[in-house]
Amino acid sequence: MLQQLAIGVDLGGTTVKTGLIDSDGKILAQSKLPTLAEENPQAVIGQIVKSIQEVLQHANGRTVAGIGIGSPGLIQNPGGIVKSPPNINNWDVVPLADEISKVFKMRVEVDNDANVAAIAEAKFGAGKDHPNFLFIIWGTGIGGGIIMNNQIYRGLSGGAGEVGHISINYDGLLCNCGTKGCVEAYVGQKHLSKRTIEKLKSNPKSKILELVGGDLEKISPVYISKAAEAGDALANEILVEAGTLLGVMIGGVMNTLDFRVTVIGGGVSAVGDFVYQAIHRSVLSNVQKPLRDGIKIVRAQLGNDAGIFGAAGMVI
Amino acid sequence: MLQQLAIGVDLGGTTVKTGLIDSDGKILAQSKLPTLAEENPQAVIGQIVKSIQEVLQHANGRTVAGIGIGSPGLIQNPGGIVKSPPNINNWDVVPLADEISKVFKMRVEVDNDANVAAIAEAKFGAGKDHPNFLFIIWGTGIGGGIIMNNQIYRGLSGGAGEVGHISINYDGLLCNCGTKGCVEAYVGQKHLSKRTIEKLKSNPKSKILELVGGDLEKISPVYISKAAEAGDALANEILVEAGTLLGVMIGGVMNTLDFRVTVIGGGVSAVGDFVYQAIHRSVLSNVQKPLRDGIKIVRAQLGNDAGIFGAAGMVI
Repeated sequence: MLQQLAIGVDLGGTTVKTGLIDSDGKILAQSKLPTLAEENPQAVIGQIVKSIQEVLQHANGRTVAGIGIGSPGLIQNPGGIVKSPPNINNWDVVPLADEISKVFKMRVEVDNDANVAAIAEAKFGAGKDHPNFLFIIWGTGIGGGIIMNNQIYRGLSGGAGEVGHISINYDGLLCNCGTKGCVEAYVGQKHLSKRTIEKLKSNPKSKILELVGGDLEKISPVYISKAAEAGDALANEILVEAGTLLGVMIGGVMNTLDFRVTVIGGGVSAVGDFVYQAIHRSVLSNVQKPLRDGIKIVRAQLGNDAGIFGAAGMVI
Repeated sequence: MLQQLAIGVDLGGTTVKTGLIDSDGKILAQSKLPTLAEENPQAVIGQIVKSIQEVLQHANGRTVAGIGIGSPGLIQNPGGIVKSPPNINNWDVVPLADEISKVFKMRVEVDNDANVAAIAEAKFGAGKDHPNFLFIIWGTGIGGGIIMNNQIYRGLSGGAGEVGHISINYDGLLCNCGTKGCVEAYVGQKHLSKRTIEKLKSNPKSKILELVGGDLEKISPVYISKAAEAGDALANEILVEAGTLLGVMIGGVMNTLDFRVTVIGGGVSAVGDFVYQAIHRSVLSNVQKPLRDGIKIVRAQLGNDAGIFGAAGMVI
């Protein structure tokens, strides 16, 4: 069969990254332009168009199946309408799919970052062999996406998979969203780092402090993980606890959907294997017996290019 | 259009209830036979066959679309294989759908009680106008089913919707299933009654005691609800708390699936409206902002006949 081509656009607050991808997941051409988020929607759309034109030249006359765009903000689908993306100036409601398809006369799909990253892993990454999985972005916050029968499951209004705001303690920590005990309030990067700084006060000899040269601002889960792997007990305790708590939420989702596989991406996913083992143990003790066989917690594979791959994956 | 007919079988530990239903949800004929659960699978299958024959006589030559069976135990689908139903003697693994279709030469579908009740509400009850909803059986334990795009969603192994064993407190009460903090361990009828008895020790003047004539064995959520509606503060507190805790779990499921509607059936669902209001408030404070519009908590409508209706609904 002839290779299909598609264009993936990763719209960020700073940079528009665009790639021309083939159906094997090879990037044939790439473009990076400033978003111009401080200007206005028309300027941002101009940059998207320009970046698409740049990579389109490398198609050498081969058919391009369409354009996928991963965008921040709330996305209304069908329609590809982007509402109030944070960090883009004066952007209230923009029918982004329409604006782009007017220029290029081809199919355009738009979805949010988390769903796009889930699609990327499903088509080209850690989820390739799993038709059903929960995808989690473990970063500053906790985002997510659900792949069901090889397709992204969006729910009634495109909000499905918002698993970071599932409560794991009805009387627990207050989350920014107003809910008590959201898993994000326990294990999101910001919260995890903050609680680590607290604990370091009574553990001044921890290797975590050594690794960041005493600079508390630098503390992040990846440093904590390095300290744990170098034998630091506090660091180990902090991340095993985080993995355990994340596993409580994942177990609940597995029980609901009767799924087995979770793929974890985002900045914090770079932590050591011992954290994945803690998550796995916790999920096992939080799912029904018949679901325990085959529970898998796997790392995302696509890293920084997930945005481009997933966006292209929506139309390939 | 000509009315479709279907047969629904509700296989219980004591009674086999079977009905001939039309597609408007009218019961044209009904049969009730003892299950003979204390004998063996062949005896039980014999009773099922007999009850089907009884109602089939009333079809008066009209075409019957098929036979649906709601069964306890683990159901393997496709295949309609029933594994280890509690309360039926010597029943290890029985290919129930095959056994029944051999006799009647028509389509036979088998599913578990909770899924069958969810299908009943979707086709004939409180979920008729809702293509997507979470169904909860609030009884001794907490069971559930998921209706997605007007169909039952079964997951990878028929276990989807087991929402009673979602943890709402990672460090909470130990559930029979071995998980900490399952919502069932807080609000399942048995647990709720037990905790009420505890609290009555320091509240000997509660109207709850009056209503059950001092017989602690009689305490049930429906009596507690009656006491609350008669102005009893303790009873009100117990059920508002139960509704709030149930709402935490429901909120998590709504966040995951991007659903709006929950239908509640089972013995405890007969409690007063104030409990539904408590559940509603709790769900609102546990779902993401964009999901709050349209959140609905509704009572199931089919009561004791849900089993027959849902079973027939699988083939209608």
